[in-house]
Amino acid sequence: MAPVPTREDKFSFGLWTVGWQARDLFGEATRPVMAGVTAVHKLAELGAYGITFHDDDLVPPESSSTERDTIISEFKAALAETGLVVPMVTTNLFGDPVFKDGGFTSNDRSIRRYALRKVMRNMDLAAELGAEIYVFWGGREGSEVDFAKDVRAALDRYREGIDMLAQYSIDKGYNMRFAIEPKPNEPRGDILLPSIGHALAFINECEHADMIGINPEVGHEQMASLNYTHGIAQALWANKLFHIDLNGQKGPRYDQDMVFGYGDLLQAFSTVDLLENGAPGGGPTYDGDRHFDYKPLRTESIEGVWESALANMELYLSLKERSQSFRDDPEVQEALAAAGVGTLSEPTLNEGEDYDALLADRSAFEDYDLEAGRTRGYGFAKIQRLALEHLLGVRSGTAQLPS
Amino acid sequence: MAPVPTREDKFSFGLWTVGWQARDLFGEATRPVMAGVTAVHKLAELGAYGITFHDDDLVPPESSSTERDTIISEFKAALAETGLVVPMVTTNLFGDPVFKDGGFTSNDRSIRRYALRKVMRNMDLAAELGAEIYVFWGGREGSEVDFAKDVRAALDRYREGIDMLAQYSIDKGYNMRFAIEPKPNEPRGDILLPSIGHALAFINECEHADMIGINPEVGHEQMASLNYTHGIAQALWANKLFHIDLNGQKGPRYDQDMVFGYGDLLQAFSTVDLLENGAPGGGPTYDGDRHFDYKPLRTESIEGVWESALANMELYLSLKERSQSFRDDPEVQEALAAAGVGTLSEPTLNEGEDYDALLADRSAFEDYDLEAGRTRGYGFAKIQRLALEHLLGVRSGTAQLPS
Amino acid sequence: MAPVPTREDKFSFGLWTVGWQARDLFGEATRPVMAGVTAVHKLAELGAYGITFHDDDLVPPESSSTERDTIISEFKAALAETGLVVPMVTTNLFGDPVFKDGGFTSNDRSIRRYALRKVMRNMDLAAELGAEIYVFWGGREGSEVDFAKDVRAALDRYREGIDMLAQYSIDKGYNMRFAIEPKPNEPRGDILLPSIGHALAFINECEHADMIGINPEVGHEQMASLNYTHGIAQALWANKLFHIDLNGQKGPRYDQDMVFGYGDLLQAFSTVDLLENGAPGGGPTYDGDRHFDYKPLRTESIEGVWESALANMELYLSLKERSQSFRDDPEVQEALAAAGVGTLSEPTLNEGEDYDALLADRSAFEDYDLEAGRTRGYGFAKIQRLALEHLLGVRSGTAQLPS
Amino acid sequence: MAPVPTREDKFSFGLWTVGWQARDLFGEATRPVMAGVTAVHKLAELGAYGITFHDDDLVPPESSSTERDTIISEFKAALAETGLVVPMVTTNLFGDPVFKDGGFTSNDRSIRRYALRKVMRNMDLAAELGAEIYVFWGGREGSEVDFAKDVRAALDRYREGIDMLAQYSIDKGYNMRFAIEPKPNEPRGDILLPSIGHALAFINECEHADMIGINPEVGHEQMASLNYTHGIAQALWANKLFHIDLNGQKGPRYDQDMVFGYGDLLQAFSTVDLLENGAPGGGPTYDGDRHFDYKPLRTESIEGVWESALANMELYLSLKERSQSFRDDPEVQEALAAAGVGTLSEPTLNEGEDYDALLADRSAFEDYDLEAGRTRGYGFAKIQRLALEHLLGVRSGTAQLPS
Repeated sequence: MAPVPTREDKFSFGLWTVGWQARDLFGEATRPVMAGVTAVHKLAELGAYGITFHDDDLVPPESSSTERDTIISEFKAALAETGLVVPMVTTNLFGDPVFKDGGFTSNDRSIRRYALRKVMRNMDLAAELGAEIYVFWGGREGSEVDFAKDVRAALDRYREGIDMLAQYSIDKGYNMRFAIEPKPNEPRGDILLPSIGHALAFINECEHADMIGINPEVGHEQMASLNYTHGIAQALWANKLFHIDLNGQKGPRYDQDMVFGYGDLLQAFSTVDLLENGAPGGGPTYDGDRHFDYKPLRTESIEGVWESALANMELYLSLKERSQSFRDDPEVQEALAAAGVGTLSEPTLNEGEDYDALLADRSAFEDYDLEAGRTRGYGFAKIQRLALEHLLGVRSGTAQLPS
Repeated sequence: MAPVPTREDKFSFGLWTVGWQARDLFGEATRPVMAGVTAVHKLAELGAYGITFHDDDLVPPESSSTERDTIISEFKAALAETGLVVPMVTTNLFGDPVFKDGGFTSNDRSIRRYALRKVMRNMDLAAELGAEIYVFWGGREGSEVDFAKDVRAALDRYREGIDMLAQYSIDKGYNMRFAIEPKPNEPRGDILLPSIGHALAFINECEHADMIGINPEVGHEQMASLNYTHGIAQALWANKLFHIDLNGQKGPRYDQDMVFGYGDLLQAFSTVDLLENGAPGGGPTYDGDRHFDYKPLRTESIEGVWESALANMELYLSLKERSQSFRDDPEVQEALAAAGVGTLSEPTLNEGEDYDALLADRSAFEDYDLEAGRTRGYGFAKIQRLALEHLLGVRSGTAQLPS
Repeated sequence: MAPVPTREDKFSFGLWTVGWQARDLFGEATRPVMAGVTAVHKLAELGAYGITFHDDDLVPPESSSTERDTIISEFKAALAETGLVVPMVTTNLFGDPVFKDGGFTSNDRSIRRYALRKVMRNMDLAAELGAEIYVFWGGREGSEVDFAKDVRAALDRYREGIDMLAQYSIDKGYNMRFAIEPKPNEPRGDILLPSIGHALAFINECEHADMIGINPEVGHEQMASLNYTHGIAQALWANKLFHIDLNGQKGPRYDQDMVFGYGDLLQAFSTVDLLENGAPGGGPTYDGDRHFDYKPLRTESIEGVWESALANMELYLSLKERSQSFRDDPEVQEALAAAGVGTLSEPTLNEGEDYDALLADRSAFEDYDLEAGRTRGYGFAKIQRLALEHLLGVRSGTAQLPS
Repeated sequence: MAPVPTREDKFSFGLWTVGWQARDLFGEATRPVMAGVTAVHKLAELGAYGITFHDDDLVPPESSSTERDTIISEFKAALAETGLVVPMVTTNLFGDPVFKDGGFTSNDRSIRRYALRKVMRNMDLAAELGAEIYVFWGGREGSEVDFAKDVRAALDRYREGIDMLAQYSIDKGYNMRFAIEPKPNEPRGDILLPSIGHALAFINECEHADMIGINPEVGHEQMASLNYTHGIAQALWANKLFHIDLNGQKGPRYDQDMVFGYGDLLQAFSTVDLLENGAPGGGPTYDGDRHFDYKPLRTESIEGVWESALANMELYLSLKERSQSFRDDPEVQEALAAAGVGTLSEPTLNEGEDYDALLADRSAFEDYDLEAGRTRGYGFAKIQRLALEHLLGVRSGTAQLPS
């Protein structure tokens, strides 16, 4: 039976996801505008925990002060009524034509200043709504013409902006953590901070690096042929997995934003396993909201929107159950042990051993039994077969290799 | 419970798959040579139906006549003993350095002649072993330097070779069908006949087009970001799906040759559904052997080789079962009907209608209710959610959208 | 000195290219609407030869009959005034939400009928304007959910539509040739007829195959990692290169539609060489208009639009000049000869030779000097070095390998 | 005239590049073994500056002590005779089957210890030869089965190994800097530290981060659709560009290792411009050796090997000349100024301005002239057109846009 999502599962959705009108580069919108309050009520009904937004999703850019106030107060009322929370908020620095060459890194200084102001205004709202994570996706920070963008200067400006905003958050007591969302390309030919790694490296150069982490999106890494599970493992290793964006993508092509798992399903399985159960050798799990950043198919009416919202949660829960059964299976544990998966947590050097001691250990090199290492089978094939059996739920009474 | 393969399932393996010694571009072999007879016995034991080979897989290139005869007679004995058949045979026109610029399309004419002879010799053996399909994978037919290969002349030579060999097969009464296997690149920078489509188009120019079809490989199409299920559907549409190569691949990158399904699992599901159940609106299913062309992981010893061989078959059978349950599910049938999947089989024109009649039908255009078409939801999201539930086996008592 | 385009160079542009308002999936338009007549005048001034359009580019969809007539008559006047011609016309079957599941292959039959009518109406206009090529790009013919689209039925419907429209063109005496434009994905997850090959194979199944060819786009093939030069060579081989769409793309990612050559410049060089000079071993060149299907960068104002339009033509002409100097260079000719490029045009079999004669030729196999073939160097590296020197214009007095 | 390389240009080659025997996954070697001394003499003759190697390139793995000593002393004699230097050395931790699951991160602890010893032994040799850079490419550090590799533990082990080796280098007074070379995949399904960014982020966690930088390879980044020029700009920004590997690649596909520039030529142009001239707004240039890590085409004999070695250097020099002419061109400088490329170096905040001051600046937000920013054209199209004209050498008397 397909699992049913509840608030305790901590699922959240961007308002821009279920609210996407399905206008794309080649065609007009196929669905009407969805008000924020509608999304709040319906998501609560489906078992979600939170809703997130860009400033312009919630409040249309040209709204008057009064309209803005009305929208926000109605939105807060809907949250109060449903119990939905706002775990994360972000800024739209890509939709307005003014940002066509970026926000923080536009070649036009006045636009950089405007961008910082737009963020600050929305941080105030985010704080008011209790958001603990503030996301930065710099979708227009990049270039198509290598000669027209000084990338080193751009990274200076990126850092300058983040540094100032971090100071603002600290001084105001907003208690937010920042999360940078990498993407390799689209809508720019090449986007700055294109992968989890580039964002982590950038953060290290920031003044308030401690409060800055990342918000990696499944599809964005997979557009660059990168393994998402590996990526978030490196982020967890660096204590920087502050937030996640779950969705589906079929490798290097346009940004598909499909339902979570509806791309590389096997990798979605290992992703959920890592988020829920931690690394095989231990280490922290992810405890933020499970956030979906997807686009309902353009062929769908509003009913299909909710189908797909449900599909995200349902699939996540199915994978969670299956990953638990995988971990609990004695044959799996035996296979993991045979493959030495756990022993990778043991230091390579003995307690207190230094390079001199290692050099003196003839068994490590001069007398090492190379043939044993060369012919050893790791048994990864078996682990993968068992993982597939758990994923598909065909595990009991599985076929055995004839002995 | 994981399904157990039997001979009736018609699974076959290339001798070069389980026999791969795992030497790659960056490292030496990790496994010893496997004799053909060993493969035959073990595959039979695992429930396979057939074994296939390149000339050089079975008989090492430098073998003497006597050695060749011994190998072949032992191989035939093993087949007889186990009941395994040889549904397909192919030629290695890529391993010997002489083929570094191709076989049928080498710029060196003497090599082209040598290649034809090498094929003919192996066709005789294939016929002797009862193979009904003869595959052509022209992995070295291509180029890295556009200016150094006349592609039009190369296609002439390709056709010349295929035409002559087809005539040979016909005249000898071999009763074989040819199957061309496309691949976009690797080991050449660009390979001729890079996709299912290019191969189908090429076949149309051949003299004996009727006896020539294709042998598409999952990973080869996916290396070009192409949908394998769509590709074989077009091949079935053209009555050209003569053989298949099943394996796994993670999009555009090096040729991974993973276990079937261990790449894009969702697409593997729709592939099996199409092969086993035919198109939703009817049409022929595939009735040849289910042939796996994969490489056991280089980390594995021989035990891992057989694990992975089993994994291919087991996964195929699981997908087959799940595709049947998907087709049988009334809610699925309802969703397919709502989405109009079946109505696509209805001609767009009425019986006997021509363009004049269509032009005269004001309801088709002048009075057409555009808004209805614009706002209609197709319900594809629901179909996909149901497909995932069947794939994962979580279907009974599934969650319903709150009404 | 950069070459200056003239009418004789036969350059043409889609009205939707220079007229693109730069609205994309993530942001609003950055440029105002451009009237067709403006485009006509400016393109003529820049040295272009033709302009092409989709029905909805020229006449906004909601125009009244009167408005339509006015637009068309003004457009014709501008053509007359400037001498610009309309070599190709096409239909927009992707922008209106009604086409969200395709036109000819929508699961909704009434939409398929509507689509055919929309095409016929625009074919009448195309004929009136003297267009000789009518292009079909089925950007919405495809799916994201494999189970929700019967691809075989879809190909039946695609063919039904094309067959009827071909008959219409013939009967009306429009004397048009059809050209199908393949694309692998975007805006659909997977598009039908995804590559040059698939389109060529499809055409073979059509009733009036003789009048149907292809309109391959550089970027569309490269999105699938396919070699565009190889692709059009296969199309020329099949006499099906009816039209071309030139632009730039950086491999598998979103459809970039950059300026021609601003992607894979080396391949653009070999493309122009093939179009202008034919295959090394002879064969037809391309004689249609050199059509650019690109998008001016979103960061540009109208001045940047015309910069980029000029850049397309200028680069094409530079490549044309350089390809001529490459062909004329005696050292190149020597290198091509050494590499056997021309000998690929020689049949592999001798005049009148059949397989029996080949089997009897011991020099072809039994006595063949394998070592000679194995150790032969083809000299492709030299050809490529010379090609690069010509491309960059650094050819005279080039460095020589020390002897 | 094509430029002629000299020692002052600081070009270096891996011994494994010109010495590659062209054995690949699908076929046998096409070229004989090349001795290190042969490579030294020929490269010197061609104008190179340095040669680099893996331990096993120079000294075949199974050599006796005496053989090893002879090889090394002959190699040193050749260096002395020619003046060639050894700027970089690295370890082969991927070829021997023992490393099939990695070296530093193998699940087998004894192999991790063996790997460290193998590196130390070769560091001693590297120091003896005066190498200042020691490269780490962990081509086998990775996985195909997500569940079989604890990535967090693997990163711990990776760091442990690097930390110990750095200490070794420091204590021995080797004065080497380490350079980590990222790669996304191949030969492993997914490799750890897959991009420039991931490697930079990893380095930040190391004990001796100051002496550790990166050695990015053009093709490795482009296999992940990443912009190499952007990547090395971020590395320069972090002062971590310790070494480079130049070659050519056609986007996401198998690792092609083509000649530098024979892939994305435009990006090669911007790469050389950055390395030689620094960022537009200033900042350090690259001052290490220009190192080529490529594979001569498998179709070539030894003559083609040297052709391609020359081609690497010749193309680099051509691009260097053209980038200088680009920088010197007044029209280019004007276009860069118009596009605001230089102004990105100006801080976004005024001297001493904090967020309060920015909030108080009504001109930055409340009174900001959005329309000006929205309609501004950046002129990137012109910069790119000028860059192409310089690249192709067609710049003098270029076409002007009709005014």
